[in-house]
Amino acid sequence: MAPIIGVFDSGFGGLTVLRELLQVVPGADYLYFGDTARLPYGSKSAYTVARYANSAANFLERHGAQMLVIACNTATALAFDEIRAGTRLPVIGVVEPGAGRVAAISKTRRAAVIATEATVASHAYQKALRRHGIEATEKACPLLVPLVEEGWIDHPITEQVAHIYLDEIFNDGAQGADVLMLGCTHYPLLSPLLRRVAPPAVQIVDSAECTAGRASAMIQQLGPQSKSSGSLRYFATDSVEKFRRLGSRFLGREIEKVELIDIEEQVGE
Amino acid sequence: MAPIIGVFDSGFGGLTVLRELLQVVPGADYLYFGDTARLPYGSKSAYTVARYANSAANFLERHGAQMLVIACNTATALAFDEIRAGTRLPVIGVVEPGAGRVAAISKTRRAAVIATEATVASHAYQKALRRHGIEATEKACPLLVPLVEEGWIDHPITEQVAHIYLDEIFNDGAQGADVLMLGCTHYPLLSPLLRRVAPPAVQIVDSAECTAGRASAMIQQLGPQSKSSGSLRYFATDSVEKFRRLGSRFLGREIEKVELIDIEEQVGE
Repeated sequence: MAPIIGVFDSGFGGLTVLRELLQVVPGADYLYFGDTARLPYGSKSAYTVARYANSAANFLERHGAQMLVIACNTATALAFDEIRAGTRLPVIGVVEPGAGRVAAISKTRRAAVIATEATVASHAYQKALRRHGIEATEKACPLLVPLVEEGWIDHPITEQVAHIYLDEIFNDGAQGADVLMLGCTHYPLLSPLLRRVAPPAVQIVDSAECTAGRASAMIQQLGPQSKSSGSLRYFATDSVEKFRRLGSRFLGREIEKVELIDIEEQVGE
Repeated sequence: MAPIIGVFDSGFGGLTVLRELLQVVPGADYLYFGDTARLPYGSKSAYTVARYANSAANFLERHGAQMLVIACNTATALAFDEIRAGTRLPVIGVVEPGAGRVAAISKTRRAAVIATEATVASHAYQKALRRHGIEATEKACPLLVPLVEEGWIDHPITEQVAHIYLDEIFNDGAQGADVLMLGCTHYPLLSPLLRRVAPPAVQIVDSAECTAGRASAMIQQLGPQSKSSGSLRYFATDSVEKFRRLGSRFLGREIEKVELIDIEEQVGE
């Protein structure tokens, strides 16, 4: 009885959000859209990301989505208002749920946020956390996404890189922070490694988990929809083979069929 | 008296080719096109890369280019024939000049090639080198581009990553190779580091340098063109500020003005 949930991301990272959604809202119908021909969003400008995110949102709406989950921190950070303005569907992003969770658990009222270059440049987390009375220090970690995509999720190199980034943030600005916010949907795969590297007193908050919880609450509010069949459809704008192979790692289960979409043609950009 | 030379790449890497061109064909007029809104090409499929490369080539032709240099190994590897078929201009890619140089210096007739995932998957270097009687082993090094873009061009992490990749290729397939071909235009920035990491007897060949030499030879063949004024125009499909900042590192000189292009609108995709 859940709505058809449209989930989108620049690529594979949003599958960590879908994985959590499948836990808390099982049985719903899902449409997942990965804009793999134009990934990553994280190194691009607000203008370009907003344009891409809007075309993805429109695609999902035209394919029957009844609510949208922006399972991408960069798209949420740079284009949440534009996406909401361009659709009549209810929209959930990943930033606000994460910020709410940080606010609920931080005792020192200080947090460290790691994210892509574009998310950090937007200061979306800093602004959202400030509304909750939390002072945040943000740090772009551009190497973590390629390390995850290389499959080095428990590799000594990744541990050293994480050390460099986390030492910088915890020694320079985020002293006293008791929460580390993972502001990129790739990072949950690094959770065990980051747990070893982060200061022991610091709790880790994962935006994927928080977003799924928020989506579940919104579904309760929306009330009963048409009967759902528990279907899962995947769309990608580039190689479906690569999506299947890499995506399974993020989703934690096999991905069978992926539909290739020519986004520029489909969306009429 | 050189033709107007159109140079293109998915982003900044091609500026290493432009840097070499400015040495060997100074005074020519250059148009440089960086498709930064859709980079990187290296992790994408042949279909998508060919489509992007064609639109970039058409853009340069419509802006007055009289010859084209595909300053991107991935685009050359995946789409050279398509690009050549879609234009009446003479076209130079980066693969064949590099392969020719390897053939000229290899004594053991064996080479190691490092490149992006997409370039390796195409086996463009293996095929080109085989035509020159050289047996090549190829290795995708997906972390090197993000490390260069992070600015870690002489960083201990980059050295360790290079060690892992080069140990793999020289111990697994490329034993006896006496040349290391840098099959990505980002890699020349890592030349000093790779020189330390590669086996001492191995010579390093840089596709940027070879391509500039080949372009110079083609210009001699084309004969005199309209008078050139030594102008340099840069076009990028995403943030011009980032292009200026990151691009200067690749070009080895300041980049002043960059023109922002909406490629989907311009090319009418």
